[in-house]
Amino acid sequence: MGDILDDRARSILFQAARTHSKFKDTPVPDDVLRQAWDLARMGPTSANCQPARIVFVRSPEAKQRLKPALAPGNLDKTMAAPVTAIIGHDMEFYERLPVLFPHADARSWFLGNETMIQGTALRNGTLQGGYFILALRALGLDCGPMSGFDNAKVDAAFFAGTPIRSNFLINIGHGDPAGLYPRGPRLDFAEACRIE
Amino acid sequence: MGDILDDRARSILFQAARTHSKFKDTPVPDDVLRQAWDLARMGPTSANCQPARIVFVRSPEAKQRLKPALAPGNLDKTMAAPVTAIIGHDMEFYERLPVLFPHADARSWFLGNETMIQGTALRNGTLQGGYFILALRALGLDCGPMSGFDNAKVDAAFFAGTPIRSNFLINIGHGDPAGLYPRGPRLDFAEACRIE
Repeated sequence: MGDILDDRARSILFQAARTHSKFKDTPVPDDVLRQAWDLARMGPTSANCQPARIVFVRSPEAKQRLKPALAPGNLDKTMAAPVTAIIGHDMEFYERLPVLFPHADARSWFLGNETMIQGTALRNGTLQGGYFILALRALGLDCGPMSGFDNAKVDAAFFAGTPIRSNFLINIGHGDPAGLYPRGPRLDFAEACRIE
Repeated sequence: MGDILDDRARSILFQAARTHSKFKDTPVPDDVLRQAWDLARMGPTSANCQPARIVFVRSPEAKQRLKPALAPGNLDKTMAAPVTAIIGHDMEFYERLPVLFPHADARSWFLGNETMIQGTALRNGTLQGGYFILALRALGLDCGPMSGFDNAKVDAAFFAGTPIRSNFLINIGHGDPAGLYPRGPRLDFAEACRIE
């Protein structure tokens, strides 16, 4: 058995961590966002393709550009959050594979195969989004991930003229426990898993 | 700033952890797989929908059923791995929302909306797969995630007659460093992120 995480670390990542809608005024320094990326980017992706691209929406001007894309239920909390990350993925991620995965001609696996490009970009960009949520928690930040928004509007406002497409959003800050709902139930092992 | 992970824990999850192709003979007890699920299931999903479903392929008989679906490059390492997890998602996950998300009639958001069902199942099932990779690492296990296989064949062999569809595979065990490739480069913050 290799090294394992102690109970405190497991709690920070999984058990005590909650999805937050309301955040304290405590600032979120740019440097912590950079540290979170530096952790999350080490997580595995297929052929090391790393399609995730992130825009951190922090300034009032950028928040105003995000606003029209938000679902009504996500509007106020997102406008008030210290930072909102747009987790996107680069649909031309394969152009970087000669550098990121030099062991094989991995670029040729994707060129012209739209189904494989889309599946790989979405699956691996989402995995990286999951690593990023846990990296933020590892650094003492709280998250409020959301998929309730208009992707086409976000793409037009933040990724126009690029091959990047939005996937989901994460409000980021120091959560205010006063804004928490009771925790939702989770599926037991026997409900979700089996061993064959 | 809330509690943060120390350098050792960050290293176990992100920096020292590697994708493994070759595993030692050290057994992987069922109980550790259960513990990993119990951690990973606490990670956030939209409307707490938890679509991920996992089959742990361990017995020689089950491995033989998996074998014809594997890409040639993934065949030997997967047959030799102590356990291979099939990460799938339940395309009828929304039927559980009245229990998992009792705050609203979330089931009605999905019924009959195939695009939203597919997008939500894939995005959230993949997020849960990412949490699961890090939960396995937190418990001292190593992972070899893969998407090189025939999904339709896996679905026929393991999910026939169910609304569950395969997403990706994870070989699980105690990695043998002798089987490692040099680590691939990662994108810098400035290459993948921007702050607005």
